[in-house]
Amino acid sequence: MSDIFGFVGAFLTTLSFVPQAWLVLRTGKTEGISLAMYSLFTIGVAAWLVYGLIEQAPPIIAANAITLTLATLILFLKARAVLQARSSTQGAAAETSAPIAS
Amino acid sequence: MSDIFGFVGAFLTTLSFVPQAWLVLRTGKTEGISLAMYSLFTIGVAAWLVYGLIEQAPPIIAANAITLTLATLILFLKARAVLQARSSTQGAAAETSAPIAS
Repeated sequence: MSDIFGFVGAFLTTLSFVPQAWLVLRTGKTEGISLAMYSLFTIGVAAWLVYGLIEQAPPIIAANAITLTLATLILFLKARAVLQARSSTQGAAAETSAPIAS
Repeated sequence: MSDIFGFVGAFLTTLSFVPQAWLVLRTGKTEGISLAMYSLFTIGVAAWLVYGLIEQAPPIIAANAITLTLATLILFLKARAVLQARSSTQGAAAETSAPIAS
């Protein structure tokens, strides 16, 4: 009886990251995505995966391997956007200060 | 040994939704947030909570009760933004068509 809820929980929480990853890939918009969330979440899911591997629990391994892949993809896209925003801000600052410096 | 990874996984994946909820609350930006993700995720976490209640497993109950609260908050803010965007689009459409109709 409880297993049904466990399977539904594992299936839906894993599946849920597909539309989120797709949204970020499609639009490239990551402003609303929290870098801190995906940093913590990715490490957390990796820990769950190690737990599943030690316990040799296929459902935990499968669910967390899929979620880890999707969360890592979102984290990568968010981190890249943050780094690009920083470098363009620095570029703008350099351009602004250039006339004053020269 | 494996329990350490389970605890770290549960702690970090639960904690991760705090900065995400805070980011949405603080900025009000929900464009990058997937409505489909939080719909599926919220139902999935609710299923995990029922699983924990049936199994009488305090760590599963605690982790999922906190995650459910945070995910529901994010889902509510995203759903409200989607509804507001729809009504303002309809309002703009009505305003645009009004001069033609009158």
